[in-house]
Amino acid sequence: MLKSKFNRNFKAMVFKTKYILLLFFCALFAETALAQQKATWIWYPGDFEIWLSNKMQVRRTEREAVFPPLWQYYSPYALVTFQTEVDIPEPDEVKIYSEGPFQLLLDGTQVYGQPKSIKIPAGKHKISFKVYNQEVLPAIYINGKYVKSDASWKVTNEDKLWIDETGKAQQSGTPWMPVGSWNFDLPQNKPSEFKLKTTPWNAKKVEKFGAGELVDFGKETFGYIKIHGLKGKGKIALYYGESREEALDSAKCETLDHLSFDGNQPETYLHDGSKAFRYVQVQADATVKYDSISMLYEYLPLEYRGSFKSSDEQLNKIWDISAYTMHLTSREFFIDGIKRDRWVWSGDAYQSYLMNYYLFFDSPSVERTLLALRGKEPVTAHINIIMDYSLYWFVGVYDYYLHTGDTKFIKTFYPRMKSLMEFCLNRRNKNGFLEPLEGDWVFIDWANGLPKTGEVSFEQMLLARSLEAMAVSAEIAGENEDQKYYQKVAEDLKTKLFDVFWDKKENVMKHQRIDGKVQEIVTRYANMFGIFFNYFTEEQKQSIKNKVLLNKDILQITTPYMRFYELEALCAMGEQDYVLKEMKNYWGGMLNEGATSFWEEYNPNKKGAAHLEMYGRPYGKSLCHAWGASPIYLLGKYYLGVKPTAPGYSEYQVEPILGGLKWMNGEVPTPKGKVSVKCTTNQVKVLSNEGVGTLRIKSSKTPKANYGKIEKLADYIYQLTILPNQELLVDYKAL
Amino acid sequence: MLKSKFNRNFKAMVFKTKYILLLFFCALFAETALAQQKATWIWYPGDFEIWLSNKMQVRRTEREAVFPPLWQYYSPYALVTFQTEVDIPEPDEVKIYSEGPFQLLLDGTQVYGQPKSIKIPAGKHKISFKVYNQEVLPAIYINGKYVKSDASWKVTNEDKLWIDETGKAQQSGTPWMPVGSWNFDLPQNKPSEFKLKTTPWNAKKVEKFGAGELVDFGKETFGYIKIHGLKGKGKIALYYGESREEALDSAKCETLDHLSFDGNQPETYLHDGSKAFRYVQVQADATVKYDSISMLYEYLPLEYRGSFKSSDEQLNKIWDISAYTMHLTSREFFIDGIKRDRWVWSGDAYQSYLMNYYLFFDSPSVERTLLALRGKEPVTAHINIIMDYSLYWFVGVYDYYLHTGDTKFIKTFYPRMKSLMEFCLNRRNKNGFLEPLEGDWVFIDWANGLPKTGEVSFEQMLLARSLEAMAVSAEIAGENEDQKYYQKVAEDLKTKLFDVFWDKKENVMKHQRIDGKVQEIVTRYANMFGIFFNYFTEEQKQSIKNKVLLNKDILQITTPYMRFYELEALCAMGEQDYVLKEMKNYWGGMLNEGATSFWEEYNPNKKGAAHLEMYGRPYGKSLCHAWGASPIYLLGKYYLGVKPTAPGYSEYQVEPILGGLKWMNGEVPTPKGKVSVKCTTNQVKVLSNEGVGTLRIKSSKTPKANYGKIEKLADYIYQLTILPNQELLVDYKAL
Repeated sequence: MLKSKFNRNFKAMVFKTKYILLLFFCALFAETALAQQKATWIWYPGDFEIWLSNKMQVRRTEREAVFPPLWQYYSPYALVTFQTEVDIPEPDEVKIYSEGPFQLLLDGTQVYGQPKSIKIPAGKHKISFKVYNQEVLPAIYINGKYVKSDASWKVTNEDKLWIDETGKAQQSGTPWMPVGSWNFDLPQNKPSEFKLKTTPWNAKKVEKFGAGELVDFGKETFGYIKIHGLKGKGKIALYYGESREEALDSAKCETLDHLSFDGNQPETYLHDGSKAFRYVQVQADATVKYDSISMLYEYLPLEYRGSFKSSDEQLNKIWDISAYTMHLTSREFFIDGIKRDRWVWSGDAYQSYLMNYYLFFDSPSVERTLLALRGKEPVTAHINIIMDYSLYWFVGVYDYYLHTGDTKFIKTFYPRMKSLMEFCLNRRNKNGFLEPLEGDWVFIDWANGLPKTGEVSFEQMLLARSLEAMAVSAEIAGENEDQKYYQKVAEDLKTKLFDVFWDKKENVMKHQRIDGKVQEIVTRYANMFGIFFNYFTEEQKQSIKNKVLLNKDILQITTPYMRFYELEALCAMGEQDYVLKEMKNYWGGMLNEGATSFWEEYNPNKKGAAHLEMYGRPYGKSLCHAWGASPIYLLGKYYLGVKPTAPGYSEYQVEPILGGLKWMNGEVPTPKGKVSVKCTTNQVKVLSNEGVGTLRIKSSKTPKANYGKIEKLADYIYQLTILPNQELLVDYKAL
Repeated sequence: MLKSKFNRNFKAMVFKTKYILLLFFCALFAETALAQQKATWIWYPGDFEIWLSNKMQVRRTEREAVFPPLWQYYSPYALVTFQTEVDIPEPDEVKIYSEGPFQLLLDGTQVYGQPKSIKIPAGKHKISFKVYNQEVLPAIYINGKYVKSDASWKVTNEDKLWIDETGKAQQSGTPWMPVGSWNFDLPQNKPSEFKLKTTPWNAKKVEKFGAGELVDFGKETFGYIKIHGLKGKGKIALYYGESREEALDSAKCETLDHLSFDGNQPETYLHDGSKAFRYVQVQADATVKYDSISMLYEYLPLEYRGSFKSSDEQLNKIWDISAYTMHLTSREFFIDGIKRDRWVWSGDAYQSYLMNYYLFFDSPSVERTLLALRGKEPVTAHINIIMDYSLYWFVGVYDYYLHTGDTKFIKTFYPRMKSLMEFCLNRRNKNGFLEPLEGDWVFIDWANGLPKTGEVSFEQMLLARSLEAMAVSAEIAGENEDQKYYQKVAEDLKTKLFDVFWDKKENVMKHQRIDGKVQEIVTRYANMFGIFFNYFTEEQKQSIKNKVLLNKDILQITTPYMRFYELEALCAMGEQDYVLKEMKNYWGGMLNEGATSFWEEYNPNKKGAAHLEMYGRPYGKSLCHAWGASPIYLLGKYYLGVKPTAPGYSEYQVEPILGGLKWMNGEVPTPKGKVSVKCTTNQVKVLSNEGVGTLRIKSSKTPKANYGKIEKLADYIYQLTILPNQELLVDYKAL
């Protein structure tokens, strides 16, 4: 049953694309009309994201040394030309704001100087601004009554506008792109001055430590240390800790600051570098005094559009701490951890996208992250240099389309999708499989002794899924030859994957082949992904469940990162009861250890400070890691049971499964609204304000509903249609 | 005779490569040893040039509007890792200077903080600095007794150094490159603060004009206006002119400044923008007074290593003004013109390279210019978007190797050569010819009515030459398969070129084919290039000389740009007498018009201010244009007759031809010295301090020499060997 559902979904995507495109164009016209009402800063698409991620990722420090990423930084184009065509009913006095000197052409004629405004006569005009900015990012904000910079403008990095010897302008072959923009809607709101929001946060507890003190902010947080009532001359040392142990260990803590004051400083000092911590040990010279330490909490303003409450208080706390963990790591981009690495990793971000759809449904954050990860041309290495991380990126783009219904992203960036896929396909070996070449890092998971060389089934499976995502994207981009090609390559690869790695005798997928020899190793990875990718038959799934997923002899997973998929696979097979217990054990285990945000890794067998170690360093582990927040996703998708079945929730499914809970209430955000689900063992209520939903329930009696027809799909399985803005009430009896 | 000479030269290049490589490696070892004695700022190769050219080219202004180029700007890598390995006899205290925050690893272990110096213990060490700088250019200067940043360091833009879960570092597939450097040999001499030199220059004449005055600096110049004895409050307008007419025409002059003073300014004002001019009209408000106007002349410090004096005073003046024109346009890069465009154009620069070899022999300027033009990956358009300009670039690299013998440039940048050539080859049509696609500009020359569509023989000829240059370069880079491939493609193209465009009946090369039909047009371009590329037989050359080059019915050339090649072709055929007259007429004609530097275009039929017009603007023409300086090259190569016949002047030829002069004395620079030639109608003296030269003279009597054997090549043609540091004196009688 699950199989057919997944398959249908995937095919439905393709089939519905044309319908969606139509909707998109309607939306586009509406948007264009609307856009006329608001000017915004515009730039070359993707360049703000590249610029900001460069800046952000280098903010990671390790004991006062900067610690930049190990992969390539791309740069914004330093010289770009913005262009629009207008037809205005009366002359328009248009204000010009620019990041960087500009050349303004009105109908092809240069306007001299660097005017702060220009009067555009009534009628049709072509307006173009060529802007140079090597230091930050060329961007403009144009604001008149009619002429406004907005998403309808075009931009190019090579305008090819040349003047021949007679003075005639020539232009052809210019690669125009739709501009990039976000929410910089005021002239003073320059993209180059982007900052997250801040709000004051006071210490919860202060205790003496040696000659200084230990300040506890009550829970994991992120921001700028503030010192109040500062007087005198001398040094103050700050030792930060996500744990008490770390803050107290001045010799080994991962982040610290040595401040120096000359006596002429103001009474209030605000640090200019933001950091992740719960505790700060403060040691001041005797010559320098202060009253107190507080901080400015720094955050991306996001609305918590998803929610979850249930009869299980521990589970509710797990959801709340997951949401907080997710918010702390949803910043300029979806990053991995707030202390470490403060970097954008594609595998980590892929999970953040999914959690985001069940918490914030913040599309700009997904777009920013996808763009920062992808960079631009040329592709010289895998994203984050990790083979699997290039592949998650494609699936992330597909999921974005599925959840939001947005085709503009794919249309704009299809060339970048294609060049990355070409890079990946060019790295296949003679058997057509991905096998690491020099410079490729195969990550999969942090797991001791996990083999990663040769042909690994997991990587081939991700590639197959990525190729399917490319086929859908090619169709959206209008590249029909590409669509056929990617579809064919995906199918061939899937066939080969099963020919080589599927063990017909054992009925499980093997992990690895080296030099043509399949190794006698079974791991969870390809087996669990194949389940929610729906690559297996029902019989194969059952075999995998018993022989792999529930088999303790198969290499155990110790990261929340892969727990995510392991539990998803089990949920996809209806094992919500089992998974609920696992969640309570695993995430509940961290809570029992005092976690106020979820960790990069958790091994229940470890004790005390051993939990803090990683990478050979006593406080190397990140205690606030996005991939720790997966209960948000699992509870929303597999307990509340809400998921889109056509792009942008134009169709969706609700299949609530209590998994042993007495009741649960929750909300799952959709592009323009939400789906509310209230479920007890004898009643389900669903209310949604967009799309057409399908409620599927298991009931030991024939359900009753306040409207619509109840369809019986199989014994004890019923299906109903949810109409927009009409709460559906169903009386049933949970199995 | 000429044919065999050229062919031999070209083959000799290839043949001698191995020998030269050996020499190169010797030089490299010597250089490494030397380099240990001096620290210098280092960066990612080519990135300084890209960064500086971005900055420089946007300095073009048109009536206070910036006027940036029409082609793509590339950017430096914002994050790079420098690395070296050292083996030092004692501990070394090493000073660290960095443009941008850095991460320092000593033997793979992070050194905390941003230290200003570090003590490196005795023994073997691997030192690496990862430097971030988005605003300017990541660069470092490292200086200890033993450990110094220099050309021996390596650099990468993706170090791929990742740490596994146990803390172990992993690194593979990192694309290391030799670093870039120039002459930033002091720590305070930061690359990001690069500026040309300046020196004061006083006005030669001041005259009243309206309420203001016209300041004449005596000749074309370039720099920063300075106002002395400034007092009061108000505005001063400056109208610049390369001509008197332009400076006096405040409404139409191409460059101007409106300065505003509030009364609190210092007495001496220095403008922060440099400009090209001879005249400045100054108009000040009555409320603001000044004593005088001067300027700071801005220039690249270069040694005039070439010289030329002859019995013809006008010719001497032509050489002097050419040298000044060349110096004014040899700046951060070889630019086209100093007023307009202040841009780096590949076709213009190609001529500057050649003139440079006969004047400054400044290799860094050639390298900077080649790198700025090439940019980096990906290639999305022709250089300057002009088809011919991509092709000149390859020939420019080859010429650089021929004149300097430097193989490091080709080895370092061969991948960029190859990707540009791939771009070009991918744009061939189904016949294997270059034909403009959308976005390609075919320039050839400014000439009214010159057909540029379809398959143009000139472009195919440049492509053939470029492919030959690629074949030589591939061999130097050790890419032997590539060498064979390019050689083959070049030969096939040459065959096809003659099959299609050579008119066997008329014995001339046709200009163009459209839709498979050769057009009835003959132009000078392919015909003259084929002569000095040595693509024609002697019989073909004679036919071309008479039917094309000396035929006034063939579309005339009006730019010094193509006069360069036209006169070169005639010189290559021994027409020095004719060319001397042409030079005196053409360049002498500009002098008669009062030129103090040579122009972008000169049409002797025009009168007065009509000389100043171009591009439909009354002062649109550049009056100081590099391509106007070609007499330097013609006189050095075809009158003094000096040219390299093996890379780096390890072998060279001297073939002095008076061309009607009574005598001439001159010097031609070589990599480490010069060749001096003194020639009258009955004596030739040659002195050189490197390489082995061949003197070839035409004499009506058997010559006598102070040393060596005189070989008779043909009637009246004799050849002698010139040994290093031994002046060769030959008595002869000019034909």
